[in-house]
Amino acid sequence: MLGGIEAGGTKFVCAVGSGPGDLRAEVRFETTGPQETINRAIEFFKEQARGTTLDAVGIAAFGPLDPDPRSETFGFITSTPKQGWQNTDFAGVVQNALRVPVGFDTDVNGAALGEWRWGAAQGLENFIYLTIGTGIGGGGLINGELMHGLVHPEMGHIRIPHDREADPYAGLCPYHGDCLEGMASGPAIAGRWQEAAENLEPDHPAWQLQAHYLALALMNMTLTLSPQRIVLGGGVMRQRQLFPLIRKRMLELLNGYVQAPALLDNVDRFIVPPALGDQAGVLGALALAERALHAK
Amino acid sequence: MLGGIEAGGTKFVCAVGSGPGDLRAEVRFETTGPQETINRAIEFFKEQARGTTLDAVGIAAFGPLDPDPRSETFGFITSTPKQGWQNTDFAGVVQNALRVPVGFDTDVNGAALGEWRWGAAQGLENFIYLTIGTGIGGGGLINGELMHGLVHPEMGHIRIPHDREADPYAGLCPYHGDCLEGMASGPAIAGRWQEAAENLEPDHPAWQLQAHYLALALMNMTLTLSPQRIVLGGGVMRQRQLFPLIRKRMLELLNGYVQAPALLDNVDRFIVPPALGDQAGVLGALALAERALHAK
Repeated sequence: MLGGIEAGGTKFVCAVGSGPGDLRAEVRFETTGPQETINRAIEFFKEQARGTTLDAVGIAAFGPLDPDPRSETFGFITSTPKQGWQNTDFAGVVQNALRVPVGFDTDVNGAALGEWRWGAAQGLENFIYLTIGTGIGGGGLINGELMHGLVHPEMGHIRIPHDREADPYAGLCPYHGDCLEGMASGPAIAGRWQEAAENLEPDHPAWQLQAHYLALALMNMTLTLSPQRIVLGGGVMRQRQLFPLIRKRMLELLNGYVQAPALLDNVDRFIVPPALGDQAGVLGALALAERALHAK
Repeated sequence: MLGGIEAGGTKFVCAVGSGPGDLRAEVRFETTGPQETINRAIEFFKEQARGTTLDAVGIAAFGPLDPDPRSETFGFITSTPKQGWQNTDFAGVVQNALRVPVGFDTDVNGAALGEWRWGAAQGLENFIYLTIGTGIGGGGLINGELMHGLVHPEMGHIRIPHDREADPYAGLCPYHGDCLEGMASGPAIAGRWQEAAENLEPDHPAWQLQAHYLALALMNMTLTLSPQRIVLGGGVMRQRQLFPLIRKRMLELLNGYVQAPALLDNVDRFIVPPALGDQAGVLGALALAERALHAK
């Protein structure tokens, strides 16, 4: 039996099971201080493990965090703005309490791994998972391994062209103003149009502009990483009318430059929604647990 | 003994040896039709192999090309604009003639692997090599493997912000106008300032603008891939005054967002020139040969 923790900045979801058809128990609680919150997760797994065996735990967490198993601070939440959680050992505490392998990665790498294991990216060695919601974050697999490196990707903050005559909105990123997140996150849409994104009609001009910005970002990521697929999740992407607009705009912007049939002739399968739905977060954590188990 | 082919669009360089201190013979000739050019390379290796053993050959080639060993067209130059070379089997012809393992990748992935083996990126599992010259191209290692995916990276064509009031130059990319290559390649510098880049004084305002565009690109690549280092090569980067300007501008643009000491406190070691100099191309090809040998 595997355990998964979807560790969000506002709530934790913990579950045990082996995959989408087998989620045996789940608990949700508010994210308070690190000691209290992590202990509630540990207690849940201890209860669930009675009479059976817990084989591994996966943690898909808010960040920034340290996902490098060779690092001294592996398993830590690092420089997060979330109060009380800076430089918190998370995976180590769980591992010491439960004595099982612990997988630890960003929420978006967790979601990516879940889609790879059971969802929209099965069998792919190179793909990107981008979530567009309150913020914008990215992860995925490259050469069959989760995207890490110096730290982990922060794709939401890339810079894209911004025509201030066509769109005078200045962007809301406190670090960069009009970076991708500053221009195309849910709060940015609301700020620009003075209306919550979910209240804008499907034919509102907001969506054409949103598709343009996301297509610019996807073009950059495609040229930089050469993924086999891009999965777009998060609250903003529940606006399904965005998918055809983004696909069309990205092909226009690439202008025939990347000569790959998988992209030019099958863009409907190149830019896709996630398949795991509301359970994506906790299933991603389970997939991290499974990977940690097999890495041992 | 290893063989390397630096297969450029205008000239081929072939060499045998084992590395920078041991390049035993080298030949250069013009790139004409594929059959004639590839045969000249094969003949060179056959001559060099007399009385010794050729263990593997590496080819670092112009593209686009197919670097995926599992593909039916592995080893082909694919949709290149270079006349006569479209859909040309290159690695297969060399392999059939010489009966040794053949490594095959883009010129820039070759150069990256050379820097990883003997140069400025030794020991790193995640880094980018970007070449800025007549065009702009990128490659590197991610999770210890050369960057592939759907095809291979085409980082030169990412889109970056362009303030047309500050810089009215429209860009020269035939596909995208003011993409990175359209704005910051050698010909773009010459087009904007009506003077060849190498004739512009080190304190000419061209270099501040160039550093700004390259810093935007490096910021995007850093946020997308989280590399441990970025190596900047190519003719334009012989202007060494660019390095401190790019480093300073990139830190300004990131504005403290990526909290990694390797970047914030050691940017001099994060953005670096290549170490292999004029032999980088053919040494990259040798490194591809070595990797092909060990993959068998």
